[in-house]
Amino acid sequence: MDFDTIFQGQLDALKAEGNYRSFADLERRRGSFPTATNHCAGGTRDVTVWCSNDYLGMGQHPAVVQAMVDTVQSCGTGAGGTRNISGNTHHHLLLEAELADLHGKESALLFTSGYVSNWAALSTLGSRIPNAVILSDAGNHASMIEGIRHSRADKVLWKHNDWRDLDRKLYAVGDRPKIVAFESVYSMDGDVAPIREIVEVCEAHGALSYIDEVHAVGMYGPRGGGVTEREGLAHRISLIEGTLGKAFGVVGGYITGSASLCDFIRSFASGFIFTTALPPAVAAAATASIRHLKRSDAERMAQRDRVAHLRARLDRLGIPHLANESHIIPVMIGDPVKCRMISDILLNDWGIYVQPINYPTVPKGTERLRITPGPLHSDADIDRLVSALGTLWKHCALAHAVA
Amino acid sequence: MDFDTIFQGQLDALKAEGNYRSFADLERRRGSFPTATNHCAGGTRDVTVWCSNDYLGMGQHPAVVQAMVDTVQSCGTGAGGTRNISGNTHHHLLLEAELADLHGKESALLFTSGYVSNWAALSTLGSRIPNAVILSDAGNHASMIEGIRHSRADKVLWKHNDWRDLDRKLYAVGDRPKIVAFESVYSMDGDVAPIREIVEVCEAHGALSYIDEVHAVGMYGPRGGGVTEREGLAHRISLIEGTLGKAFGVVGGYITGSASLCDFIRSFASGFIFTTALPPAVAAAATASIRHLKRSDAERMAQRDRVAHLRARLDRLGIPHLANESHIIPVMIGDPVKCRMISDILLNDWGIYVQPINYPTVPKGTERLRITPGPLHSDADIDRLVSALGTLWKHCALAHAVA
Repeated sequence: MDFDTIFQGQLDALKAEGNYRSFADLERRRGSFPTATNHCAGGTRDVTVWCSNDYLGMGQHPAVVQAMVDTVQSCGTGAGGTRNISGNTHHHLLLEAELADLHGKESALLFTSGYVSNWAALSTLGSRIPNAVILSDAGNHASMIEGIRHSRADKVLWKHNDWRDLDRKLYAVGDRPKIVAFESVYSMDGDVAPIREIVEVCEAHGALSYIDEVHAVGMYGPRGGGVTEREGLAHRISLIEGTLGKAFGVVGGYITGSASLCDFIRSFASGFIFTTALPPAVAAAATASIRHLKRSDAERMAQRDRVAHLRARLDRLGIPHLANESHIIPVMIGDPVKCRMISDILLNDWGIYVQPINYPTVPKGTERLRITPGPLHSDADIDRLVSALGTLWKHCALAHAVA
Repeated sequence: MDFDTIFQGQLDALKAEGNYRSFADLERRRGSFPTATNHCAGGTRDVTVWCSNDYLGMGQHPAVVQAMVDTVQSCGTGAGGTRNISGNTHHHLLLEAELADLHGKESALLFTSGYVSNWAALSTLGSRIPNAVILSDAGNHASMIEGIRHSRADKVLWKHNDWRDLDRKLYAVGDRPKIVAFESVYSMDGDVAPIREIVEVCEAHGALSYIDEVHAVGMYGPRGGGVTEREGLAHRISLIEGTLGKAFGVVGGYITGSASLCDFIRSFASGFIFTTALPPAVAAAATASIRHLKRSDAERMAQRDRVAHLRARLDRLGIPHLANESHIIPVMIGDPVKCRMISDILLNDWGIYVQPINYPTVPKGTERLRITPGPLHSDADIDRLVSALGTLWKHCALAHAVA
């Protein structure tokens, strides 16, 4: 059996359809975000990063950097074990207390990543609640889809953001334990769920509500508790899942909820139990970041300004981007080869780094540049991006937005 | 539907059978390993950690600590995105090159954890190789079991470490793509697989061989390449999986293999694609640790000495421990309640921390203390541990080893 031939065959198919991924070789520079060093064939060059999920630049915030450095110095580099076997450190517990407080919940539970938190929590809920059904928004992230799949619970898809469809489907499920899984801000379109309506439907049907706030924590709400905080709905949601790897600028994932819920996942989730804990220094850095963003609105305000400014400039040039009420600006291309080509030109000719977003991250035919302006993008950065896109749209005969 | 009642009911059942887990609240102290601070009801106290998987104490090695601190200072705290979308940094690429070299393979691929590397690699291989069968050692780790389960490929269990049984089962599978998954050092019994025989059987049947070396990398082989390096077998194995969170003292997981194999997993594994990359500083620390252990045998030699010394002392007192050729010393208790009780007495009366290992980490009835001596345990530490165990065995009427 020639396995390499099987592998290469599938890779060649990916290349033929323009969906093979090449990673940019970057080096972030603390103090210079969003500028990074790009290692390339000819050596290195400076690029402006326009597609980072370190949405607020907290990855270079002095308090966050200092917490990580101090804790590496005091505790060493790793946790040394699973949470159960010697890897449960005081820094993990402080972080979990901070997270529970952030969302106004009794408890929180930390995972090695947001992906793992969704996968482990949903697979445990779906497999251990007898006769459970999971009702999943059709736009949910891969980590939720895989968690639901892994649980082998019955799954019902409801139309993206359509609470009336959810209501009908919950009604049809009848008298079984029901889990409703959805997100607040959807990563690739940047649209925001009608959370209040969804929560009311969940309450009416006695369903457990499970919300993924990874693109919203740190970003929305007076203390960065996400859209559920902004809307005053956090206390009506059973489980709020989030990440430490985007607006908080570090790495890791978590869930928050009732004490029994978190203890249940802690006690039964394979993906929590059988894995080395995050380094104490990562936990300490995340705690510092959350604490800062609970008190400070400056980063959120500056980011909102940058987003509005860029949107207005794109509109003036007729460059098509999806309308949404979030911080994510998807500039639509609709073709994987063109999308990569534009990204390559931006990088090579303009020193602008926006990774092309192709299948399987988005459906085929909806390829895009996903632009995430942050508080650290200057007016000059925006000028340069807009000039580059304007030139490309003129020279490459790309479609303009319809007025 | 009262979900909390469902959760609490299952937690109560766990408590009733003695398998509810309480985590020790620890604070590792760089420069003082294996001593740690234990936060407890009465304040704090010093404890000696005897159950860490930071097997060689690399988590406090000056070169590893310095690499992590330097990289936090230069690059900030997080990667800021998935590997594809702005999170692929030069430090990740350097680490992957180091890992490929460590195992003499063309390529390596980094994951957020060892758990995720097994889960993602096996689920991708099993689901994307048409008509594949996965033959899994009966003792495999949870992460492999879950990856195989997730793939929905046909699975055949073979008797633990029994290459003759594997041979028969491969024969019975017939002409289909076959993946053989096993470990080199098994975590809880510390036994080592007959790798040469297994590899020969795989070759005879044209099977892809997949070995988990997480408890062996850094520890065995002249450069820390694991048991496969020590036995000169690495080049005959298709995929070697390892961790950066045990002997290397940091966090993260990886696979190594042919360029096509790694590119295949890179391109299709959901658990690789849709997750934030590890912080550059974690990658840099891991690289420093691997580089050090490629050159230095001192830590491995010192550890072997400590292991032999403790085993001899336990034998002299007739304290039963599983014989094996690895660094893991399982002291068998065989009852979850007693196991926790002994662990509690060790912690409270002796300042010795060895977490009880109960179900589901080990089968019910095989509860144990899993002791992992390291190069940093002093003669005095060993004296104290042996005194404590001797006293407990005398006072608690625990079974002695049969001479």
